[in-house]
Order: sequence, then C-alpha cells, then structure tokens
Amino acid sequence: MGDLILTTFDWVPEMPRGYVRDLRVRWALEEAGLPYRVESTPFRDRKAVHFAHQPFGQAPWLTDGDLSIFESGAILLHLGERSDTLLPGDPRGRSEALEWLFAALNSVEMASLPWSLFQFSGNTGDSPAWNLFDGFLKARLAHMEPVLAGREWLAGTFSIADILMVDVLRLVDRFDGLADYPACDAYVARATARPAFAKAHADQMAHFARAD
Amino acid sequence: MGDLILTTFDWVPEMPRGYVRDLRVRWALEEAGLPYRVESTPFRDRKAVHFAHQPFGQAPWLTDGDLSIFESGAILLHLGERSDTLLPGDPRGRSEALEWLFAALNSVEMASLPWSLFQFSGNTGDSPAWNLFDGFLKARLAHMEPVLAGREWLAGTFSIADILMVDVLRLVDRFDGLADYPACDAYVARATARPAFAKAHADQMAHFARAD
Repeated sequence: MGDLILTTFDWVPEMPRGYVRDLRVRWALEEAGLPYRVESTPFRDRKAVHFAHQPFGQAPWLTDGDLSIFESGAILLHLGERSDTLLPGDPRGRSEALEWLFAALNSVEMASLPWSLFQFSGNTGDSPAWNLFDGFLKARLAHMEPVLAGREWLAGTFSIADILMVDVLRLVDRFDGLADYPACDAYVARATARPAFAKAHADQMAHFARAD
Repeated sequence: MGDLILTTFDWVPEMPRGYVRDLRVRWALEEAGLPYRVESTPFRDRKAVHFAHQPFGQAPWLTDGDLSIFESGAILLHLGERSDTLLPGDPRGRSEALEWLFAALNSVEMASLPWSLFQFSGNTGDSPAWNLFDGFLKARLAHMEPVLAGREWLAGTFSIADILMVDVLRLVDRFDGLADYPACDAYVARATARPAFAKAHADQMAHFARAD
C-alpha cells in the first residue's frame, strides 16, 4: 500500500461535468478519509501511457503504490478493502455489498447507460429501439423500487455499493427518469446529501473549471 | 462454506439456450473442480421466493451454505476466492484479474448487450440509434484487439476474468461481430476449447432440453 493517486482527464466538455466517473472514486476516498492527490491526463490527445493504465482510453484510474487499477468497480472494491467503513467485514454483509456493487453496474447501469445515450443523442422519439431500451430501464427501476422502499442502504450500512448505485441513478435523474420511482429518488437525495458527496462533486467541478 | 447449489430457470426458449448466464457459473465450478448441484426455478411464473434470491427476477443465483448470491460477477468473485486456481493470490495478479472482471461486465458487455438487443429485435437497419450502438461496440473491440493479441489470458493465467470476458464475446460472435477482430476471435476459440467449458455448455443444453 502506498500513496493514492487518482488520475482523471485534464478537461471535459460542459455536458458530462459533475458526472465523470472519477466522482465515484473521489466520493469513496472522501467517505473513507483516505489521503489522495489528483493528477490529469489529456482529454484531447490520449497517449500510449494513458492506454497502458486504461486500455479503453477512458478515465479514471487509481494508483496505489505500484498497483495501477482501472474500472470504477475494481477501484471501489480496492478502496472498500482498504477502508474500515465502506465494505462490511462479516461474510454476509460483505457478500451483500458485493452483489449490489455488481448489480449497480451490470443490472442497473447496463440498462441506464444505453437509455442515457438515447437521451444525449436526442433519439427518444417513438421508435421500436427507443421503446425497447426505455422499457428495459423501467423494468429494472420497477425492481429497485421495492428494494429501496424497504431499506436505507443496500447492504445494511452505507457502502461502496451505494456509491455506485447512486451515481448510476443520478444520471437517470438528470433526465427526469426517476419521477415515477419515489423510493429511488429519495435514496439518491439522501446519499447525495452526505458531505463526502458534496466535497467530491465540488472538487470535480473545480478541477475541470480550472482548465477552461 | 457449505454445499454449493446453483439455481437457474427450469426452462427457457430455444434462442438463449447455450447463453443463459448460469453457464458462467457452471464453467467456473467445473474449472475449479468444486462439487455442486443444480436446482430449478420457474421461468414462466416467478414467485416471491425467486425475487428474494434475485431482486430482478433473473437467473442464476448461487447458495453457499447460508449465503445466497446473485449477479454473475459477484458469484464468480466468490468462487474465485474459494478456489485455488481461478483468481491469482498475489496482490498484482489479483488486482489485474479483478479489473478485467469488471471490464468484461462494465466496459465490454455494457456495449455488447445493447448491440445484441438491437440484433435480437431486428433493429439493425441504418438509423442514428443503431449506428451509435454499433460504433460503441466496435470502439470497445478495437481496444480489446491489441490487448488480446499480446497475451493468452487477461491476468497472466486463466481466471474468472476470462470466463466473463469470453462469455460476453461469445454473444457478439453469435452475430458475426468478431469477424474484424481476429485476436478476440482466437481468444474465444481457445477458451471455449477448454474441457470445463464444453462440460458446462453441454450441461446447460441438457438441463433445458429435459424440460421440453
């Protein structure tokens, strides 16, 4: 274990600001109270060194001493294992947090990201493809609704699973997609009211604003 | 740790047979040489007990003694930690396997699953939405190609990351989507030539055939 360095883009357009995935990592680091620093990699001209750390040319990645980790899910799992507070230590709690961490990415974001791409690209007019993907997301939210109506956090206490699930649902909320799902909406509101989220969000906005 | 029980649907239509996600779990169990048994849950009439194990009403889930785990990624992580062979034990190898496990699900399947939904629903005619999602998948495959041209397996030795990545790429290959990516294609071929894959695939086909 060594110094934690989070690398993200030096700049991004206005649209994704506040939603770039380094936010998930900043949020987890702030919740855990782990010291870290932030470095930048060019957004416009992505070099070989960038692909060596992140094979898809995306951001962020995290270095921890001589480990370099990409994928926000893998980074949050690593931070959960390093912290005392973000991943339950008992086998049942740990297992619940991990299944919900994967559910955030592979069941909910799997439906919400295509839906968001339709939104961003302005392809939400009546068409078989849009109706298919809109229905796909709504089915997943309909299953999340009773889960979130019955508990404050996904795995008993606030964990890395909540950071990922909330960050996924935030992007749905941006396009008013949670209006019919009050428990999902309230969950996003109570999670984003945490001081660590506010700090992470403000820091991301300031980071990209500095490059304008 | 207790008896391992894999629960999947009692029956599915012809189209998804050979591709239902219990295959990922069967494959890992066969590779690890862990004893297990398979139980069924109704496909057509999904009861409350199903949603208690799998909140989205999907399959599979795995029980290990008094733990019940859903999400194929979480199940494979659990099996990787139980086996001696499917998840490297050294910090660097483990970290590499985990980042590629998440990459399979959240970078590659994130693009391939929407692409497959366009394929399954016959919406691959020239349209802005299809072109967007076809381009999304091709960009991800273009980044996987040099990675797989340079190594036999993603994390040095065969691991749970390969099981997930190969199972994701198999569905692309079903619709001829790997024709321009020979390293991806060869990777799928050498992984699916493993006896554990053949056993898992044959067992899934036989399981659903018994219900016809």
